[in-house]
Amino acid sequence: MPLSMYQAAIPPLLRGLANLSAILDKALLNAESRHFDAAVLLQARLAPDMFPLIRQVQIVTDTAKGCGARLAGVEIPSYPDTETGFDELQQRIARTVLFLQGLQAAQFDGSEARDIVMKFPNQTLNFTGQDYLQYFVLPNFYFHLTTAYDILRHNGVPLGKGDYLGGGG
Amino acid sequence: MPLSMYQAAIPPLLRGLANLSAILDKALLNAESRHFDAAVLLQARLAPDMFPLIRQVQIVTDTAKGCGARLAGVEIPSYPDTETGFDELQQRIARTVLFLQGLQAAQFDGSEARDIVMKFPNQTLNFTGQDYLQYFVLPNFYFHLTTAYDILRHNGVPLGKGDYLGGGG
Repeated sequence: MPLSMYQAAIPPLLRGLANLSAILDKALLNAESRHFDAAVLLQARLAPDMFPLIRQVQIVTDTAKGCGARLAGVEIPSYPDTETGFDELQQRIARTVLFLQGLQAAQFDGSEARDIVMKFPNQTLNFTGQDYLQYFVLPNFYFHLTTAYDILRHNGVPLGKGDYLGGGG
Repeated sequence: MPLSMYQAAIPPLLRGLANLSAILDKALLNAESRHFDAAVLLQARLAPDMFPLIRQVQIVTDTAKGCGARLAGVEIPSYPDTETGFDELQQRIARTVLFLQGLQAAQFDGSEARDIVMKFPNQTLNFTGQDYLQYFVLPNFYFHLTTAYDILRHNGVPLGKGDYLGGGG
């Protein structure tokens, strides 16, 4: 049988969030073992006009909760973006996981055809639910997860593809 | 109706390959306008033990053709990894696009339950077709596409999220 919208969206997002949490734990331990303030990593970025690690993590969770809420037809939880440390980022990830886990597969039935409207300061994007998942959520989710990983690798944190893929893969 | 395996895999891969092609074109033009040899970008990497741009592009195409072939049940085209310039990378991307476009949606029917075995030097991964797509292909495809983008952004090539997402998004 083909993939349901729930199956195509939620388990991969949960896997990615778990991997991100484990990656951040490794980064924190690595900073301790190299005797520098781990907060330096949170402000690290790959280019002056790219977001730092802390914002990459926030956007990963925003993309995940936005997807779950929009496709399930419930209100998007609002997070205030006030995190300043690893502990608070881990709480944000955990909160996102709990939100996604609380959604029922049946809430996603028919969401492939639902109109999704995303308003940004400079543009409005209109999607069907399926296009939103395939051409906005998944590419963006993996973009910010990968960029978080790339920022840490660029700063010498020892990570491998297994940390990114998770699940023993 | 839910997503077919074909729909969940091939159109997003084609979109990503088109975006990668356009990103590489912008990188080449930028190198020319900044008066340095564009080949320098192909050898750029974010960490000494990460792959350079040229290898990131090769892996993006490998992931795409491997996915199409394994899920459609046909032989994986073999590319010799001998590219040395932007022109050859563009040819490799175009060749991958043509291969994917030649696959028929019906060839993917039932592929969600197909056994997929991936042999690596140090391990063998076993997936169902659906798990292969969701937990190997899509995360890896976007990982290497994003890392190619991140390498270029780190080296000052002016790109934006629209270049990565493509399709006007």
